[in-house]
Amino acid sequence: MNYQKMAENAKAVRTAIATASTNTKNAALLAIRDAMAASRPEILKANQKDVDAGRNSGLDSALLDRLELNDARIDAMIEGVEQIVALPDPVGEVSRMTRRPSGIEVGFMRQPLGVIGIIYESRPNVTIDAAALCLKSGNACVLRGGSEAFHSNQAIAECISAGLKAVGLPEACVQVAPTADRDFVGAMIGGDQPMCDVIIPRGGKGLIERISKDARVPVIKHLDGNCHVYVDSECEQEEALRILENAKTHRYGVCNAAESFLIHEAVAESLLPALEKVLKPYDVEIRGCERVRAIVSSANAATEEDWFEEYLGPIVAIKVVSSVDEAIEHINTFGSHHTDAIVSTNYKTVRHFMRAVDSSSVIANASTRFADGFEYGLGAEIGISTDRIHARGPVGLEGLTNQKWIVFGEGQVRA
Amino acid sequence: MNYQKMAENAKAVRTAIATASTNTKNAALLAIRDAMAASRPEILKANQKDVDAGRNSGLDSALLDRLELNDARIDAMIEGVEQIVALPDPVGEVSRMTRRPSGIEVGFMRQPLGVIGIIYESRPNVTIDAAALCLKSGNACVLRGGSEAFHSNQAIAECISAGLKAVGLPEACVQVAPTADRDFVGAMIGGDQPMCDVIIPRGGKGLIERISKDARVPVIKHLDGNCHVYVDSECEQEEALRILENAKTHRYGVCNAAESFLIHEAVAESLLPALEKVLKPYDVEIRGCERVRAIVSSANAATEEDWFEEYLGPIVAIKVVSSVDEAIEHINTFGSHHTDAIVSTNYKTVRHFMRAVDSSSVIANASTRFADGFEYGLGAEIGISTDRIHARGPVGLEGLTNQKWIVFGEGQVRA
Repeated sequence: MNYQKMAENAKAVRTAIATASTNTKNAALLAIRDAMAASRPEILKANQKDVDAGRNSGLDSALLDRLELNDARIDAMIEGVEQIVALPDPVGEVSRMTRRPSGIEVGFMRQPLGVIGIIYESRPNVTIDAAALCLKSGNACVLRGGSEAFHSNQAIAECISAGLKAVGLPEACVQVAPTADRDFVGAMIGGDQPMCDVIIPRGGKGLIERISKDARVPVIKHLDGNCHVYVDSECEQEEALRILENAKTHRYGVCNAAESFLIHEAVAESLLPALEKVLKPYDVEIRGCERVRAIVSSANAATEEDWFEEYLGPIVAIKVVSSVDEAIEHINTFGSHHTDAIVSTNYKTVRHFMRAVDSSSVIANASTRFADGFEYGLGAEIGISTDRIHARGPVGLEGLTNQKWIVFGEGQVRA
Repeated sequence: MNYQKMAENAKAVRTAIATASTNTKNAALLAIRDAMAASRPEILKANQKDVDAGRNSGLDSALLDRLELNDARIDAMIEGVEQIVALPDPVGEVSRMTRRPSGIEVGFMRQPLGVIGIIYESRPNVTIDAAALCLKSGNACVLRGGSEAFHSNQAIAECISAGLKAVGLPEACVQVAPTADRDFVGAMIGGDQPMCDVIIPRGGKGLIERISKDARVPVIKHLDGNCHVYVDSECEQEEALRILENAKTHRYGVCNAAESFLIHEAVAESLLPALEKVLKPYDVEIRGCERVRAIVSSANAATEEDWFEEYLGPIVAIKVVSSVDEAIEHINTFGSHHTDAIVSTNYKTVRHFMRAVDSSSVIANASTRFADGFEYGLGAEIGISTDRIHARGPVGLEGLTNQKWIVFGEGQVRA
């Protein structure tokens, strides 16, 4: 397998895909959709091979479930492509043009990032989703899914190639790893000439940390989602309970689920017993500070580790705080800068919280579960970034682009 | 020296400086200015120590010149602080708020990056400039200048501390390396708990590559400036010559100086002899392709390395091309994605070039020398980024911030 050649091919098509018209990109996506629909039997057959191998090698049932395709899932993949066709094209947007004293006009034009490498687990649907998002945003991409999905991904890759070819775009715009070898990842992210300009790892924290450590190119990544809800002294108790319940129990295993509640001391006595009752049917374990335990007898003692913890399960850490500033300090210190919410009816308190909390999403009077590309109106999402630079929070098509400066002159030179 | 403590201090003041009002930040900057003015003798004395040591250890004259302070340079540093006071505060800008079907309102709020680490050469003026830019943009910072400027930087650090103290901001908002030890850089960028959230290295390419390689946190950096001017078949020859002359000869050692010219074959015969005449008084060496050498007898032969080269001196590589697309392909392949310009009077050709060239600045009919924070209206510049993510091109106050998502609800939960 000639990785060097793949790297050269990816770089060679950057201009072609970056300058492709919206119509051409949409036509390619629709041709890919058609190829998927036509190749349904081949995709299912390849997937069966992966599923059989996975079952034989003792893959656990959750992983097998994510790996397995069926007609409904292929329908969903096809529908996903159609949704991306319907989204506006971010490339080429011009903004903030101003005229400078020298007479030049200066502003921004939105531009693809280049060659995006996406490394993900054994979920074949990500292959088509990631390819479609990169294509629509004018990026070339190199996709490397988990080795358990190798045959499924190869079958999908053939559909993608066929679609690109049908509209005259170079097939190297989307390159799916042609091998399950581990060293392919190394060629994507490192060496003297990494295959990719930017890497987006998706998957477990261990994978993401390893890739971030080894990558010689920028990484757009998601680490922890240790999300908080702070309930202020001034709040509507019914609303607070509804938001706390939803943030914690709506889905446990997602990054925007709340892991810690911070309750203002003025409402702790009335709110905590009611909250205990709300959480009871869900069997959510409460780990509380001393002041919580004095009110909620069923609460276990929280240790300092609990304030850092992303449980991703039916456990919640609760702390009584004396002020909004204590809550903000707690969130900025122990949180993961992902998504944090306040429940308050006080104008100044809400405004202060929104400014001071240093998280990718800061929410007033709604559930943390809204921190999501679809809920925010991105239409599609490649992931949620917990980085401090480039895109923060849900990353859609725009997060796969950047702004370059453009300058229009009439012969100006520097004096 | 307790680096761990410095890291904790930097993180502990993130919220304080991020939420400081514009008035407070400006008052701190003016107090720092006053302290600098009052400590002029101490700063000059400390600097004299550095200059003497540098001279004794055989520092070359260019480095000594950058290291040396005098009254005029301290005046310039003070004036620089006043200019930053006058700039608008980027923090807190709210944009693109929309209402979603769920009823929540979603948009962006501009937020500081956190703790910015700046690593630079032995230029004491950078200490005050970097501190002022970070402060104004609401970031804490850790500054590590070249060891030859150690005493100068300590004297400036005392003025900064005094200014912060005067307005009640924590002194840890700006921490200047208290040691010239190399391992301090390691503590800023690496280890289990890097001192900084983001690193901006300024200096030679070797330094920047080394830091990028070792950093465990994102790096905003500048590598090469291999800039091009393409002269189209349709152009005004006088204008083309003026821009070529300025882009190459206005200053040789700067990153936005042009290093290669691409000349359309239709104008090569008339333009190249005139260009040779224009460059003659500057003693600029021309390295040309075969077609250039057939017209310009004084041109030396260009090799493939020349197309990659950032000369930073009186040399220019010139190639005759057959189309704007050949020029674009050449720029995107051999260039460094920094700044590239076209000279053309053709509407469609200019538009195509602006879209297709993948550089941080793309310029029509003006000199590449305009790619500069001051010329673009940023008011101040921490550097020019050649990265593909986050800020591209000149980085001012806004490039030291990012956008977080903010959400306003009225009790909404996810269904």
